[in-house]
Amino acid sequence: MNNLEPQLQEIKEQINQYITSCDNQQCINLFNSLPFGKMLRSQLILKIAGITDESLKLCAIVEMIHTSSLLHDDVIDKANTRRGKVTINAKFGDKISILLGDMLYSIAFSQLALMNQNIAYIIANAVTQLSIGEIMDIELTNTFNTSYDKYYEMIYKKTGTLIEASSKAAAILASKDSEKYALFGRNLGLAFQMIDDILDITQDSSALGKPSMFDFIDGKVTIPYLLLYERTENKDKLKSLFKKPLNKKDILWIKQEMKKSKALEDSILQANYLGQKALEALKGEDNIFLEELINSMLQRTF
Amino acid sequence: MNNLEPQLQEIKEQINQYITSCDNQQCINLFNSLPFGKMLRSQLILKIAGITDESLKLCAIVEMIHTSSLLHDDVIDKANTRRGKVTINAKFGDKISILLGDMLYSIAFSQLALMNQNIAYIIANAVTQLSIGEIMDIELTNTFNTSYDKYYEMIYKKTGTLIEASSKAAAILASKDSEKYALFGRNLGLAFQMIDDILDITQDSSALGKPSMFDFIDGKVTIPYLLLYERTENKDKLKSLFKKPLNKKDILWIKQEMKKSKALEDSILQANYLGQKALEALKGEDNIFLEELINSMLQRTF
Repeated sequence: MNNLEPQLQEIKEQINQYITSCDNQQCINLFNSLPFGKMLRSQLILKIAGITDESLKLCAIVEMIHTSSLLHDDVIDKANTRRGKVTINAKFGDKISILLGDMLYSIAFSQLALMNQNIAYIIANAVTQLSIGEIMDIELTNTFNTSYDKYYEMIYKKTGTLIEASSKAAAILASKDSEKYALFGRNLGLAFQMIDDILDITQDSSALGKPSMFDFIDGKVTIPYLLLYERTENKDKLKSLFKKPLNKKDILWIKQEMKKSKALEDSILQANYLGQKALEALKGEDNIFLEELINSMLQRTF
Repeated sequence: MNNLEPQLQEIKEQINQYITSCDNQQCINLFNSLPFGKMLRSQLILKIAGITDESLKLCAIVEMIHTSSLLHDDVIDKANTRRGKVTINAKFGDKISILLGDMLYSIAFSQLALMNQNIAYIIANAVTQLSIGEIMDIELTNTFNTSYDKYYEMIYKKTGTLIEASSKAAAILASKDSEKYALFGRNLGLAFQMIDDILDITQDSSALGKPSMFDFIDGKVTIPYLLLYERTENKDKLKSLFKKPLNKKDILWIKQEMKKSKALEDSILQANYLGQKALEALKGEDNIFLEELINSMLQRTF
């Protein structure tokens, strides 16, 4: 059981209050049908900055930003479910999902404007990087990407920057060494996205809420595919399956090749290595809770 | 000829620099295919606050926010052209248009975070209201709206708030009476949106870049239709045409009824009245340039 549960509840209440104060019944209803996940970013902030009014507010802001980006993602990916719930776009249409995202973004930025200027800039700037990362993610699906550098840059921007910024901002709130915590967050974010990319292959579709290997079908050459492409003797066959609907035989072949070439195994090692690097960045800091958080994150199954 | 032309060019350059510093070629290319209109909000800011580094920066921020909202609008409206140019969504897809909007929003908010905190909050909060206004706009198309109050509230939020906030923020920069300028901006914004709603009826489709009377076809009961519904003896017929594709006969009938009932004429009077109220709010202020701006705006044809 998560010992931060009461605080995470409080953060949701805080967001609820921001929405309610906008005094529009439809927005309130829409907000109430939004699913919240494990609130990793909030857990991170609270574990770094401790529980204060300021840190709880920062959590609310970051969760609103994260939720906005998911609302827009779901429109982009035409997703019907997220975290086991029907998405806003599937239920109320793309228009509402886009605008609810814009609304949450702007509430977050309004509240951010009232915080420490340095923190406001760090978080807002991370959102720019996040959007660029998402654009890169789409761009990279145009062809079969074989560049590690591009993959790293993309996942750093798409996922790493907001976790890095959350971690850095929390350190600033707590007067800790912000550069150390930024580096920690950066590596944690990279590891987190890699695990996500690995789970797309190892988990079955019921756990994921989308078809297995959806990333590859969707044109995303993630770390296991990058390693597989480098190692397999059947490069042409792998390329021929890219962005195609995969049948059971294709899926089996990819999984066997991944096993044979250790592409999957080494991807997991790579994610763990980044997790270790994240912890190393905090050498000398009191980080027992963060260690727990990283371990639970690296071992997650969905 | 607009005497602010060099400054408007400078603002575009400033935005270009923000985008360029993000160091992503695709984003730079996308930005270069964006059309900028008359930059009304920038003209307003510069005429209130004068030309300083701060006021030019505020203009760049507001134009980025306005452009973002248009990028998202075009996805929502499935628009193929805007200001005579093919839209980003038509050219590169909805995904890119949503994400480019998010990127511009966040660059604007990053820069806003570096400004006066009061101004940052005013502008960010206006974006929240803008999003709620857009959600209301969609909500109101579900049934034939006959409420003036809802129409006013919606156009105030959708269009009035950002113009109000721009005007107020500019007044703060210039140490002028910000409440006066807020009221001015509010009425100007309302008048501006009403003119837009009127042009949808009076202009032909080539000037608008969309079918004439598209608002009504789209479910939007704007001020001329509100007045017409109140006055016509054929309420049922008007209602029967709501949200339907209109043929030439239908369009002719609506136009004749609008003429007979003076619904259109009185809508124009109403917009002019709001324009006058805007000017009255500035009584005692040096407002000759703003008067010119209002007049050119009320007499615009597209």
